[in-house]
Amino acid sequence: MSDRLSTTFSALADPTRRAILARLASGEATVTELAEPFEMSLPAVSKHLKVLQRAGLIARGREAQWRPCRLEAAPLQDAADWIEHYRRFWEESLDRLDAYLKEVQAAKKPGPKKSRR
Amino acid sequence: MSDRLSTTFSALADPTRRAILARLASGEATVTELAEPFEMSLPAVSKHLKVLQRAGLIARGREAQWRPCRLEAAPLQDAADWIEHYRRFWEESLDRLDAYLKEVQAAKKPGPKKSRR
Repeated sequence: MSDRLSTTFSALADPTRRAILARLASGEATVTELAEPFEMSLPAVSKHLKVLQRAGLIARGREAQWRPCRLEAAPLQDAADWIEHYRRFWEESLDRLDAYLKEVQAAKKPGPKKSRR
Repeated sequence: MSDRLSTTFSALADPTRRAILARLASGEATVTELAEPFEMSLPAVSKHLKVLQRAGLIARGREAQWRPCRLEAAPLQDAADWIEHYRRFWEESLDRLDAYLKEVQAAKKPGPKKSRR
């Protein structure tokens, strides 16, 4: 689990951590600000921040009291590149679904006259 | 951890499981075939396959002995969609790096004549 990509995916495997990243996408925030929407204790939020920081997904300012968190998206690019290799597979299954739905729809419509006599 | 996206990311957070998916991208395979490159016991591989199956990333055939595994890419699409929202962030940082490197390179070149007198 110590490789970079595993660390990234592992950090993303939690709804609170993904929500924190979504919040930071709109700008820097302090731990207190990040904790607000979650009804979570500061230590609980800090724990999530540490996971994100170890994964290189956030960085923290140096000012002792303030220390705002900001998003660092570089590891997400590697994750996106990895997933991208599989695009043709999900696009193929969507194509198959699309073809199937068209088939079902065609079967429901009244057929051409010559087939109805 | 029980939401779909967390389950997907969690399943991807392991190099063996990602290697299994990469193998299945080139076609169906049995557990024995999947175990071969890993120097891993069949039960260990089976455990990884169960994680992938629960995450909906693989499906297994119904034939009792054979039961080949195949890739199911639909959950990867949701993961890709989630990550895609952050694309502008990593592209921005690449742009900044690019600008910085150009600056460094420009500073290394001998300046125009008028600045050298």
